[in-house]
Amino acid sequence: MSLPDKSRLADAAALINRFIHRTTVMSANSFNKTYGVQAFFKCENFQRMGAFKMRGASHAIASLTEEQRRAGVVTHSSGNFAQAVALAAKLHGIRATVVMPDNAPVVKTEAVRGYGAEIIFSGPSPQSREEKVAAIMTNSDMPFIHPSNDLMVILGNSTATKELVEDIPDLEVVIAPVGGGGLIAGTALAAHAFGPGIEVWGAEPENVDDAYRSLKSGQIEYNTSADTIADGLRTHLGDINFPIIRQLVSGIFLVSEAEILDAMWWVWQRMKIIIEPSSAVAVAAVVRYRQQLAGKRIGIILSGGNADIRHLATIS
Amino acid sequence: MSLPDKSRLADAAALINRFIHRTTVMSANSFNKTYGVQAFFKCENFQRMGAFKMRGASHAIASLTEEQRRAGVVTHSSGNFAQAVALAAKLHGIRATVVMPDNAPVVKTEAVRGYGAEIIFSGPSPQSREEKVAAIMTNSDMPFIHPSNDLMVILGNSTATKELVEDIPDLEVVIAPVGGGGLIAGTALAAHAFGPGIEVWGAEPENVDDAYRSLKSGQIEYNTSADTIADGLRTHLGDINFPIIRQLVSGIFLVSEAEILDAMWWVWQRMKIIIEPSSAVAVAAVVRYRQQLAGKRIGIILSGGNADIRHLATIS
Repeated sequence: MSLPDKSRLADAAALINRFIHRTTVMSANSFNKTYGVQAFFKCENFQRMGAFKMRGASHAIASLTEEQRRAGVVTHSSGNFAQAVALAAKLHGIRATVVMPDNAPVVKTEAVRGYGAEIIFSGPSPQSREEKVAAIMTNSDMPFIHPSNDLMVILGNSTATKELVEDIPDLEVVIAPVGGGGLIAGTALAAHAFGPGIEVWGAEPENVDDAYRSLKSGQIEYNTSADTIADGLRTHLGDINFPIIRQLVSGIFLVSEAEILDAMWWVWQRMKIIIEPSSAVAVAAVVRYRQQLAGKRIGIILSGGNADIRHLATIS
Repeated sequence: MSLPDKSRLADAAALINRFIHRTTVMSANSFNKTYGVQAFFKCENFQRMGAFKMRGASHAIASLTEEQRRAGVVTHSSGNFAQAVALAAKLHGIRATVVMPDNAPVVKTEAVRGYGAEIIFSGPSPQSREEKVAAIMTNSDMPFIHPSNDLMVILGNSTATKELVEDIPDLEVVIAPVGGGGLIAGTALAAHAFGPGIEVWGAEPENVDDAYRSLKSGQIEYNTSADTIADGLRTHLGDINFPIIRQLVSGIFLVSEAEILDAMWWVWQRMKIIIEPSSAVAVAAVVRYRQQLAGKRIGIILSGGNADIRHLATIS
């Protein structure tokens, strides 16, 4: 597969410009001193609806023709992508239908409904979810948008790193968390297009290390456990993002659950910003692999801030 | 008293420039839509050591002569000003002695020691604290820096609003929390100097409404209770800041404890930033007085982010 080039990525950025925030980049002297790096945090926790997913959802919907989107769009997600599609659809003036597991937290289903989307509940298993999506697709003309394995979503996600590279010159490494693979693929495309020579690394919980194993084996591997606090990273790669990741990502840093919680807590307390556990995975990677990263200028994608603060404050 | 003019305030900003961060200003669509205002949040929670106090402490120390500061400086504080003086002294390469109550949280005493300052403990009462300070001053040449009733501290504090007014044109109102009066006095000086026509309002918990009563009576009033979650605001005004406040501050908004917690929680969850309860007092004022403030362009000073997250998450 030939990779989308610079101009394709720039088009994506222009297309979603009015639907998203250009988020700030923060740095923290105390982090740099403690860990011996120069870290730059791309704050997608400040993105609309609270996560980078807004970029991919906006680009996927904006890329449809008028006629395609007239019927509305369908997605499935228990997390941030549900809210992202709901909000992006609202901003485009179209309908959205979101398949969510019936054990999704009420705060998330309320947020999705708050943006005006319709929720159709499935059972909690991936199989039940896919059956429900298939049933909807059979009876409808609505395009389906996959949360991570969709090139239009990946191109939308790439815009975060495009902005980061524009704002912070001479980055040497960019690190993003890896779940379904849509963020790391977009990150890698933008880093290579706009910052040649930048190494892109993924960060993943040890307990759901499917991407790490996939890069080793050369084929998409799956998780047998979902036992991580980083609930956005429990999914596996897909056939559209995996080839991009294989070609452009240098490797995956693995971190423990304790390291994720420590990193999250450090960012909350010291940087005074709320990040969700999935974002903390990328921070924890810098802490754990600081000798390998010593002295480097590192971009860290803080993917989102939709954290259950009350619960996490009691366990971290 | 003639007020410090524009050039005096600009000198203060230039003097502390290299010791402080120029903090960002955030806005939140959902806040504006919900409450019918245009709010701009000056993020002093991102300031060095986590609060605006760094500005006043830096300016007070930088304003001393070489000879004056050779012996080091003394202050008293159980909170953010202790850390601010400790860090500012460290950056100036001088010693700092901080009188802290012996019931101060360990996390705060450790932070002060972490910056290299010496702590001398007093009893928890203001009287015990003042006796301890007096004893130190008798035996030493060290200048004493009061946390809020000191013109050099007030001038340093003014720089936050100078930046805010430079970054956000056409503000109509600026609101800051009121504790000892050093922040609101600096805020009012800068707003009137750099943004003529801006109204400056203080925000105070109903339970410690000494500034509200002081403006009514025309003399400094005191609190009989310290029963507020906004622990930075339990103190009273002083003879240096009160004349500035009387002359330049339009009034004080009072808010309840429940309103403070609701506002703090909203900012944590929706804006993804950690603010301390004292900062939330200013946010709560906009929420409560939104009809009076309808449609206005309002600057809100988020004074700091040194919150006990674990504890506050359980009660808010």
